[in-house]
Amino acid sequence: MERTLIGDLRSKIGQSVTVQGWLQVLRDQKKMQFLVLRDQTGAVQIVVEKAASPDQAALISTCGVESALTITGKVIDNPIVKLGGIEMQLESIEVNNNAAIPLAFEPFNDTLPALDFRMDWRYLELRRPENLLIFKIQTTAEMAMREFWLKNGFIEIHSPKMVGTPSEGGAELFSLDYFGRPAYLAQSPQFYKQMAMAAGFERVFEIGPAFRADPSFTSRHMTEFISIDAEISWIDSHEDVMSMQERLLQYTYQKVKDAHGDEIKARFGIDITVPTLPFPRLTMAEAQQILKERNYSVPADKKGDLDPGGERELGQYIKEKYNHEFVFLKDWPIEVRPFYHMRHADNPKLTKSYDLIAKGLEITTGAQREHRRDILEKQALDKGLNLDILSGYLDYFKFGCPAHGGFGMGLSRLLMVMLGLESVREAVFVFRGPNRLEP
Amino acid sequence: MERTLIGDLRSKIGQSVTVQGWLQVLRDQKKMQFLVLRDQTGAVQIVVEKAASPDQAALISTCGVESALTITGKVIDNPIVKLGGIEMQLESIEVNNNAAIPLAFEPFNDTLPALDFRMDWRYLELRRPENLLIFKIQTTAEMAMREFWLKNGFIEIHSPKMVGTPSEGGAELFSLDYFGRPAYLAQSPQFYKQMAMAAGFERVFEIGPAFRADPSFTSRHMTEFISIDAEISWIDSHEDVMSMQERLLQYTYQKVKDAHGDEIKARFGIDITVPTLPFPRLTMAEAQQILKERNYSVPADKKGDLDPGGERELGQYIKEKYNHEFVFLKDWPIEVRPFYHMRHADNPKLTKSYDLIAKGLEITTGAQREHRRDILEKQALDKGLNLDILSGYLDYFKFGCPAHGGFGMGLSRLLMVMLGLESVREAVFVFRGPNRLEP
Repeated sequence: MERTLIGDLRSKIGQSVTVQGWLQVLRDQKKMQFLVLRDQTGAVQIVVEKAASPDQAALISTCGVESALTITGKVIDNPIVKLGGIEMQLESIEVNNNAAIPLAFEPFNDTLPALDFRMDWRYLELRRPENLLIFKIQTTAEMAMREFWLKNGFIEIHSPKMVGTPSEGGAELFSLDYFGRPAYLAQSPQFYKQMAMAAGFERVFEIGPAFRADPSFTSRHMTEFISIDAEISWIDSHEDVMSMQERLLQYTYQKVKDAHGDEIKARFGIDITVPTLPFPRLTMAEAQQILKERNYSVPADKKGDLDPGGERELGQYIKEKYNHEFVFLKDWPIEVRPFYHMRHADNPKLTKSYDLIAKGLEITTGAQREHRRDILEKQALDKGLNLDILSGYLDYFKFGCPAHGGFGMGLSRLLMVMLGLESVREAVFVFRGPNRLEP
Repeated sequence: MERTLIGDLRSKIGQSVTVQGWLQVLRDQKKMQFLVLRDQTGAVQIVVEKAASPDQAALISTCGVESALTITGKVIDNPIVKLGGIEMQLESIEVNNNAAIPLAFEPFNDTLPALDFRMDWRYLELRRPENLLIFKIQTTAEMAMREFWLKNGFIEIHSPKMVGTPSEGGAELFSLDYFGRPAYLAQSPQFYKQMAMAAGFERVFEIGPAFRADPSFTSRHMTEFISIDAEISWIDSHEDVMSMQERLLQYTYQKVKDAHGDEIKARFGIDITVPTLPFPRLTMAEAQQILKERNYSVPADKKGDLDPGGERELGQYIKEKYNHEFVFLKDWPIEVRPFYHMRHADNPKLTKSYDLIAKGLEITTGAQREHRRDILEKQALDKGLNLDILSGYLDYFKFGCPAHGGFGMGLSRLLMVMLGLESVREAVFVFRGPNRLEP
């Protein structure tokens, strides 16, 4: 049995072919049945004369909407049919898997139950073409990034997710029992990317899971997310990291636009704009000044930092002033950055770090790392950290670690911004939050 | 400052250039210093006249071997120099990161400390070019697989690694506290790949971590490993899965051979053989008969199954008979396969499943899955499983799940076999075993 994709039926007029997909509509009339079968390439109407095929018609009557079917029939050119001016006349049908009646919810209804309920039946939710499209775009975007990196001599790494020390700060860590001793789930591949720099790998990337025991319920947070990470050696400053990331994103947006631009416009009403280079850059001092001028007050507990409202306001400013969707906010104060961010030689109160804001949402933190062991130890002590816990990490800087830096970017946040989705929950295959471990 | 790669120095004779890398050798003589600097593209000798540069010479004398250095100097054609007939005359040097003396171990010594000690200092171990090469090959191999999949319409997924139910059997699970309730680390993306089939994704792949709380200390086992997974819908049998996997591997081996064949030969003494299609196939019944004829006895506790010795013996048989490195062993008895493997319609004692043996080592388990909910439930009960725990999984088969199947393959095992490595520990960036959570 050779399968024909529904999108290819136009070239099969007059032939008997087999299609496979999901029963999207069943109109069961007195003398006739009209089925609409859907696969990834489209939908087609299938016509059944009950008198001519009584057994098959009886079988079809038992099928719930969304049943998985294999249908063989003759392809007919019929201009009055709305679905592409084509229909199929049933010859035979196989019910691969019947859908129980009623469905948990009807994925193609105009009104849908609440997102949380739909997440219980995520696979039904994912049958909507716009949801499938999100993951086709994700596939294209990830492949584009890897192409960019391979063209630029990067090595792919997979760092361990079970780690022995709570070294990256200790908050929001999931812990587990590891053969009688504690282990933790990695919050990021940060330290292992740096180990790769100490190993002389020079340029690495990783796309993999990261874990945060963060009890947040916002539209931006997940307890498990896919982190896009890169790290490069022999840099002069965080400017080298920003330069790599903006070229990466330009390359990725171009590939997504080429492959899916029209469908994104049709399904999400969004024009994908390939960003121009360089992205606008603001120092945090400039950003704070701009917010002040625009009468935006960062909450008192976020002094020196930014809150989501401030990020949105700066995104708006950049859109108005530069007609750009991205902005690098750089040179953050040491108080709001981790100990391993390098400090400016001429201003030890500022780090050589940045965030990337896309359409007003933070999607990246990046920095040059401090690779000089003595200074790194001092900065850790300044932050009140325990050098014993950090000793494994500090050892990376003992035997010739070059200057380096990198960034981490949330994959689902990137998709959320790119496609204008309301919540990161729509941009992830299976969501994990404080109250959600299923499916 | 523009960096010149050491491999490009031949085109820079007579020019002053800057190179960056690691100090592999330092010969500190009375009047002269000779340095060998290494980057990923090669090594070069740098000559220092002490009298001409007394301050720089004094600085160099403090450098430990494996220090990270930036060196500017004039490139000289000198046929008597062993390293490519080139040397550089020092003009300036920057010590990016000095290496403490002595090193934890000398990575370029002929004799090395035990592997377990070297793993404590994994980054030094990884500085050896043959180890870097393993991860360049891994990068090429993964990219080749993704290219193959994208050419064939697959969607990339990232399934959650924290899961709410111990549904895949329950043994060897790591558990953790998830906001006051138990969670588990996924042993494989198996159930989520199947959810993607129920979602109509049709063809998916994932390369990501999997976790096994397995107290084994063999050369093949890890508690955390990278699993290469694919799943396809609308199949007729496990033959469709094998067919996809053998084409994937042929494509991957060809790409690895094209990119690294000569270097693999030079560093590992291995000729990469691109496998011919189709791979040999044996039913388990045939395999057991062959073992019997070759006087190999599978241990009594492995009845119906295979032990590592049996796998090696069958690998040897296939090499002798077909001059092939791969063999699919198919149609395993239901006793040694999980409940979700589909059974043969004409022989309910046998599953539509397979293992892939490569050079005598099992690297894959694959199967057609049972997608008919009533039969799946019955098979779960036959295995003594609790349907309540499985209810989330069983729900995937309620509303139209097509016939499907797939495989999982260990990335490090594949590299181990491809490169003839003695242990999977050499093929993984950072190893995790029962006694090893660091680095």
